[in-house]
Amino acid sequence: MSIALVLSSGRAEEWKFEINKHLPEINVEIYPEIENNEEIELALCWKPEADYYTHFPNLKVIQSGGAGIDHLFPESIPSHIQTCRIVDPMLKSDMFEHVLTCLMHSMKNFSAYAIEKAKQHWQPLVYKSIGQTCVTILGLGEIGGYVAERLAQLGFKVNGWSNSAKNLKGVNSFTGIAGLGLAVEKTDFIVNVLPLTDATRGILNHDLFSLCPKGTVLLNVGRGEHLVDEDLLEAIAEKQIANAYLDVFHQEPLAQDHPFWNCSSVFITPHVASRTNISSSVLQVVDNYRRMTEGRPLLNEVSLEKGY
Amino acid sequence: MSIALVLSSGRAEEWKFEINKHLPEINVEIYPEIENNEEIELALCWKPEADYYTHFPNLKVIQSGGAGIDHLFPESIPSHIQTCRIVDPMLKSDMFEHVLTCLMHSMKNFSAYAIEKAKQHWQPLVYKSIGQTCVTILGLGEIGGYVAERLAQLGFKVNGWSNSAKNLKGVNSFTGIAGLGLAVEKTDFIVNVLPLTDATRGILNHDLFSLCPKGTVLLNVGRGEHLVDEDLLEAIAEKQIANAYLDVFHQEPLAQDHPFWNCSSVFITPHVASRTNISSSVLQVVDNYRRMTEGRPLLNEVSLEKGY
Repeated sequence: MSIALVLSSGRAEEWKFEINKHLPEINVEIYPEIENNEEIELALCWKPEADYYTHFPNLKVIQSGGAGIDHLFPESIPSHIQTCRIVDPMLKSDMFEHVLTCLMHSMKNFSAYAIEKAKQHWQPLVYKSIGQTCVTILGLGEIGGYVAERLAQLGFKVNGWSNSAKNLKGVNSFTGIAGLGLAVEKTDFIVNVLPLTDATRGILNHDLFSLCPKGTVLLNVGRGEHLVDEDLLEAIAEKQIANAYLDVFHQEPLAQDHPFWNCSSVFITPHVASRTNISSSVLQVVDNYRRMTEGRPLLNEVSLEKGY
Repeated sequence: MSIALVLSSGRAEEWKFEINKHLPEINVEIYPEIENNEEIELALCWKPEADYYTHFPNLKVIQSGGAGIDHLFPESIPSHIQTCRIVDPMLKSDMFEHVLTCLMHSMKNFSAYAIEKAKQHWQPLVYKSIGQTCVTILGLGEIGGYVAERLAQLGFKVNGWSNSAKNLKGVNSFTGIAGLGLAVEKTDFIVNVLPLTDATRGILNHDLFSLCPKGTVLLNVGRGEHLVDEDLLEAIAEKQIANAYLDVFHQEPLAQDHPFWNCSSVFITPHVASRTNISSSVLQVVDNYRRMTEGRPLLNEVSLEKGY
């Protein structure tokens, strides 16, 4: 029995090293240099090619190398294969920290001060305080729920929108399409942390932006495909959306000719909100390998139907 | 009995309105248009001229319009006049929020991403997480102590340096000159929130910078006079200090020809970290006026000898 690493991220050696620290007796092979495809029972994958799982006739478990599974072509995975994702405490706290950085950067006018400095202008501006600020989190799963609770703990007014109602400390829970309008109608910020599914693709669009107060600020830390880029540019031109902080894009790296580069109201970070921490996440991969061999229930298994 | 407003900040009408809301029967006069100088028993002052208190022969109380009293020429105030300052909860929390914004901005490379964006570069950088970051707060008074405890609560490793040892939750307390070296020797950030006194003037200097690890980041939200500007520029040139976030300056607005404007490692904010909130602070002024007339002990009286 072996483990295959099917990773487009160039971190395969690091994963192999960390897995073998905990499972020294197990053969960990890096795709496409696999000695014996029939030996592979668990494949750790990150943005693989479309037919990746067909190489391994005895594959039982697909383990995503991160929090999402949208990159694994979930619609085509045969039902006898179980699919799991990483739920990493560092991933959650790093995401909270990135979101907090964007919120504070906007509330305290740091983009404006950087511009004023270049012009040698001394121009005090009115700032927003945490207690006066409402943040609406789209998606209250493992990551979104954590971000929402920590922001509430800091003193933000927090709304959360999700598929099913959630009971999170300090977070007003909204569900459904009617709930979406209520969640954003008085907000200062929208933070997208939704999983990417057919139901959420393109959810950050003209219709949503028109439900928000004029001057709302958008943070997208979910997936590029959640956002309709042209709708955002139009909403910014109309000042319906004041600013956007984007960490994810349809194509990454963001194409050289994409209009976001030249839009002064868009702050671009290169998909750095949170990065899977291999030395902490490896414990879940190792645990799932043991659970698989012993026939026990897997950790963080996802529903392919729901997509998360 | 009247109250005089001796304010260089242009917020006199706002103060007068707020004081009269609570004390409608009291005459509040705005310097230099005072009808009867002998009537003045309490003067609310912000950055007055040197001889300000000599105009009022019956002055009993000088109330600072903010947290500091260094701007009141404390060394020359006669001992029969009591001096008080504002301890405003909003001032404390706004200061915490400004410090947090600077810390996160630095830890998450937001200056670098703004520069990369202008060049249309996609360049992920390694970020620091809160749990890995040590912040040393210089000054653990009302404001510094609050900032230190809130940062510790968020998960930062926090050292604090002050005149006398403090017992603050999650904060390692250091005192004295020997303690200063210990407080900063392994730090990532230095945050100056000290009061300005003869003992602290120029404390942010070459000697302090050389006690820090190479690449330390400096935040100054105390007073401009705490910093030896040339020493900072030299420490930045030598990369001993990686970056500085400065909110206060020797001269404000910062002079047009000051080298900080052109130093890419200095982030300038125009003295906006926290602004006295008149509608909440007025309660302390009103309370002190009543205490004065009734001969009761004043709120937030300062020691002119210590300077805070």
